[in-house]
Amino acid sequence: MAWNEPELVLASASPRRRELLEKFSRPFSVCPARGEEAPAGAMGPEDYVQALARAKAEEVAALYAGRDAVILAADTVVERDGRILGKPASPEDAQAMLRSLSGREHRVWTGLCVRRGSLLLTGAECTRVFFRPLTDREIGAYVSTGEPLDKAGAYGYQGLACLFVERIQGDYYNVVGLPLCRLGRMLQEAGVTLL
Amino acid sequence: MAWNEPELVLASASPRRRELLEKFSRPFSVCPARGEEAPAGAMGPEDYVQALARAKAEEVAALYAGRDAVILAADTVVERDGRILGKPASPEDAQAMLRSLSGREHRVWTGLCVRRGSLLLTGAECTRVFFRPLTDREIGAYVSTGEPLDKAGAYGYQGLACLFVERIQGDYYNVVGLPLCRLGRMLQEAGVTLL
Repeated sequence: MAWNEPELVLASASPRRRELLEKFSRPFSVCPARGEEAPAGAMGPEDYVQALARAKAEEVAALYAGRDAVILAADTVVERDGRILGKPASPEDAQAMLRSLSGREHRVWTGLCVRRGSLLLTGAECTRVFFRPLTDREIGAYVSTGEPLDKAGAYGYQGLACLFVERIQGDYYNVVGLPLCRLGRMLQEAGVTLL
Repeated sequence: MAWNEPELVLASASPRRRELLEKFSRPFSVCPARGEEAPAGAMGPEDYVQALARAKAEEVAALYAGRDAVILAADTVVERDGRILGKPASPEDAQAMLRSLSGREHRVWTGLCVRRGSLLLTGAECTRVFFRPLTDREIGAYVSTGEPLDKAGAYGYQGLACLFVERIQGDYYNVVGLPLCRLGRMLQEAGVTLL
């Protein structure tokens, strides 16, 4: 890292995003945005996640005014048939979500926003995820591990739901919450090199 | 795990495969097969990886004769245009392999073999991997990290090559060396439950 490279700031409280960014030797700090979850309204998921990521980046950028900082924000949603699935409210809710994903396709969308001074970059990444048919026993056993409860769509492909996902089309890391290939290119445009 | 479930034996020396299997609470032991790398001859990659996995499973099964054990073996290759890419012999070789993957598609094949007594199951999983175009600087920086040197195809999607892979089609875990969704179903058929 050159002495004149900007500060890199991750505007997210997600431990999974932090871990993914820690793959690289580039130092960064974490400054979570409150990121109020605005209703999607008439927006499709592609615009919605970008709007949320941008709002987070703007919020944190205000705190870094006058410093040479690159602010990075992201927001991920799970979409099934045009409906957005959030985190389950209860184990029963998690079971219902998993039943609705069983044996079919859904999509994971992540919006990215990178801001450095007046430079503002946004983008969205989509990964299609195909679940094999699940039995009630499997869904029950999975929910009882507690893993689904803090995850949008009620599953973690990086965790035990690896047994459920037959295949994906897109960036694996997008499903975990940070599409690293696209992120690397956006950061490069903003003057930050990850490799 | 019920008291009468069989022993589970991973017939592989790969630390990545062991780590992946450790995701589950199911105990297992590790007994690496020597797994002589036979030449593919006229076989395509789909048959080749299954033949290698089967040979490893048979080798280790012989050591467990008379015990109720489920032997699990796997073999992974990277294929580009019908040519199989092994581990690079040198940093220069790694650079050449990465240049040959830049901006295009290749395939990762894993053969699985599960053996329990007279029950023998084999299967192969294929994941298509799409690299974005890489610059010479990126290839040089990546090779100098040392990460490519012990990996078939000279990259690890689980590592820094996440910046190179635009998208995949198939099971992510297959690219790491153990397609977990297919494996879960094969083990289930052999009486071993991972969840």
